Amino acid sequence: MANRNEIPYKIYLEESEMPKAWYNLRADMKEKPAPLLNPATHEPASLDELSAVFCRELAEQELNNNDAYIEIPEEIRSFYKMYRPSPLVRAYCLEKALGTPAKIYYKFEGNNTSGSHKLNSAIAQAYYAKKQGLKGVTTETGAGQWGTALSMACAYFDLDCKVYMVKVSYEQKPFRREVMRTYGADVTPSPSMTTEVGKKILEAHPGTTGSLGCAISEAVEYAVSHEGYRYVLGSVLNQVLLHQSVIGLETKAALDKYGIKPDTIIGCAGGGSNLGGLIAPFVGEKLRGEADYQFIAVEPASCPSLTRGTYAYDFCDTGMICPLAKMYTLGSNYIPAPNHAGGLRYHGMSTVLSALRAQGILDAVSYKQSDVFAAAVQFARVEGILPAPESSHAIRAAIDTALKCKETGEEKTIVFGLTGTGYFDLYGYQKYNDGQLENYIPTDEEIAESLEKLPKF
Amino acid sequence: MANRNEIPYKIYLEESEMPKAWYNLRADMKEKPAPLLNPATHEPASLDELSAVFCRELAEQELNNNDAYIEIPEEIRSFYKMYRPSPLVRAYCLEKALGTPAKIYYKFEGNNTSGSHKLNSAIAQAYYAKKQGLKGVTTETGAGQWGTALSMACAYFDLDCKVYMVKVSYEQKPFRREVMRTYGADVTPSPSMTTEVGKKILEAHPGTTGSLGCAISEAVEYAVSHEGYRYVLGSVLNQVLLHQSVIGLETKAALDKYGIKPDTIIGCAGGGSNLGGLIAPFVGEKLRGEADYQFIAVEPASCPSLTRGTYAYDFCDTGMICPLAKMYTLGSNYIPAPNHAGGLRYHGMSTVLSALRAQGILDAVSYKQSDVFAAAVQFARVEGILPAPESSHAIRAAIDTALKCKETGEEKTIVFGLTGTGYFDLYGYQKYNDGQLENYIPTDEEIAESLEKLPKF
Repeated sequence: MANRNEIPYKIYLEESEMPKAWYNLRADMKEKPAPLLNPATHEPASLDELSAVFCRELAEQELNNNDAYIEIPEEIRSFYKMYRPSPLVRAYCLEKALGTPAKIYYKFEGNNTSGSHKLNSAIAQAYYAKKQGLKGVTTETGAGQWGTALSMACAYFDLDCKVYMVKVSYEQKPFRREVMRTYGADVTPSPSMTTEVGKKILEAHPGTTGSLGCAISEAVEYAVSHEGYRYVLGSVLNQVLLHQSVIGLETKAALDKYGIKPDTIIGCAGGGSNLGGLIAPFVGEKLRGEADYQFIAVEPASCPSLTRGTYAYDFCDTGMICPLAKMYTLGSNYIPAPNHAGGLRYHGMSTVLSALRAQGILDAVSYKQSDVFAAAVQFARVEGILPAPESSHAIRAAIDTALKCKETGEEKTIVFGLTGTGYFDLYGYQKYNDGQLENYIPTDEEIAESLEKLPKF
Repeated sequence: MANRNEIPYKIYLEESEMPKAWYNLRADMKEKPAPLLNPATHEPASLDELSAVFCRELAEQELNNNDAYIEIPEEIRSFYKMYRPSPLVRAYCLEKALGTPAKIYYKFEGNNTSGSHKLNSAIAQAYYAKKQGLKGVTTETGAGQWGTALSMACAYFDLDCKVYMVKVSYEQKPFRREVMRTYGADVTPSPSMTTEVGKKILEAHPGTTGSLGCAISEAVEYAVSHEGYRYVLGSVLNQVLLHQSVIGLETKAALDKYGIKPDTIIGCAGGGSNLGGLIAPFVGEKLRGEADYQFIAVEPASCPSLTRGTYAYDFCDTGMICPLAKMYTLGSNYIPAPNHAGGLRYHGMSTVLSALRAQGILDAVSYKQSDVFAAAVQFARVEGILPAPESSHAIRAAIDTALKCKETGEEKTIVFGLTGTGYFDLYGYQKYNDGQLENYIPTDEEIAESLEKLPKF
């Protein structure tokens, strides 16, 4: 047992203390997340149907609601050891700057070249693709972290990697593209003329800056129409949350080592991969009645699926070729305003997190991006790390929670997920530094209009 | 004692094992490095003279050839704990890819927002400036790591920070500039019209892309002509190598913990701060006759001070207003070709390293940048980290040493300094990926011409 009186700035687990199995929260959920549906039949998607799009073992993981633990293969564990365990950091300097009695910790996932937690699932998905003897994988990327992560994983396993990158990010972030190329990936701005669905979208919306939903459709089309390819996705899916549970398992092990019990656990939420992974073992404890925690999802006001969306079956992609998922959604045609600088721009939310939200276990808040960048800069100047705009949503909520503690005198223990670094997001920071970062909040009418296209059945 | 049979991927020291004092190699050198000279009198620069340019305590450290250990103030240690100890990584994947019997380790200094080891000295220099009650500091930056590091340190201590950035980098790396602005620094491309020396240089060389030597002159001029400002420098100086000894001390502690004895220690060398810090305690052992190691400095073929320069007194800056230093130099007017993509573009070399080189203790090699980027990409794809072009010089030499071991069958233990990440150097990677990265090697005539302007006395 570590010395509980002296909590270091950074708690690092030993490599031998790293999780040997992922934790599958679904096994502990009495009300399971709603199943994916075949978009044609509206019947639950079968293993064979999913295996046409995803690698076989990943499709099995997608459907596995029963096994609480799934072993992490040795090859993946070896790769994890190159950048994990990640540190759980005590934000001593931020606490001091805020003058709060709260204790703030963050699990920092940015110490790798992808700059985020995305690598945790990328390496798993590349491993299963390689194991299945595939030639390559396709995917979409928004802010670029996922595409970078997958490029790195594919370089490691010598797989072909085809990335459709949301056009607005492709243009704002040429250097993200260049990192992917350095790792050998082929990067195409989406929507593109390289797929049927891309052509259709470009015809309907000639000036579109793209969306994750479009890029997913293109990546899926390429995968299913090319021999030896499968599609992989960086968020939303059950399998991704499963892989990301390594974040939460390490966090819990580090907290337990020092006898720390969190009150509030906070994460940013786009598709839900980081938040779902971070909170998984803690939600498990709560569901089993072993402990109680508050969980807060933080999303951008410009893309507020959990706070303003509807809980319903919807398409996962704009092209409507993927299975349907029951989730909090803004409608698969929803595209956040182009002035939105961070990621977290997906129209829906992981079915697991959506179910937890519907069951009253997960709270949710949204913030304007100017407030988010203000928190980012405050954090950077005292804690040293320049955070990703996505992660800064969680920082904002953590700071606000800590400031509330200052008012009430509560000595809460706050844990938040610092999913990544903002080194490739300087375009957004530049706008903020120049006072030109505009906020956009969709009107109720805009959201209602987008939701009109929900599948009806 | 750690389990010597199982060497993890990453050796992390505990925070309690971090060095409490810097190691001052000069105390153990029988032949001391040559003193700095007043450029007007050619007499050794006095403490008072240096204190007009540098903070008092830093000037004292600059002149201290006697104390082997200088305590690290608690405030600096606290800051160090936000990003240190840095990992010593066993390059298992690189070893496997090379098929070498050599064991390769690298001390990775890139896990902080400055992206490099520069923060180790930036925080020390900002601390002493604050302690002296100064209003702010000025500096130059080339590739941008040092400017970023100093911006971060000044934000932490609430000091004004004025950075002169070599114009070619300023233009190639707008996002580096933006990080510095985010931390509150004021960044000016150099040469500029804001100083007399800048104006003079622009008149003489209207199209110049700038050099570290020019930027130093501008930063010094600003500091000495403004009340409450001092100049700080990120490399070359004795004080900087002193602060950077934290790299070598941690490396040695980590190696000792697992009973590992290196044969060859490799570092890239521009001004010498990383290499000087990394090898300091090992050179100390060698000088005291306690152990033997091979030390290799690696520099770019386009700026080859150690391999093709002269060991002589020279100006540290283009404007010739700084003290003179005895060093391996290409002449203070030497400017590497603008197609040079990495840093390491200083015309001279730390007096400590220059003395070690002259005494036969330090070997030196140079590489063309195309070979350096090839090593960078190879490393990135197997070890996951996208390295800085500067650091990649050390990677190149480590790979070549390991490949030589493959031929001879020697099981050498190689340690190299991975000084930082290349996240802001994608311009260079893009050129390399596009096959457009050109090499430049100065002719003997060009070097001789530049050396003609050495001060004569």
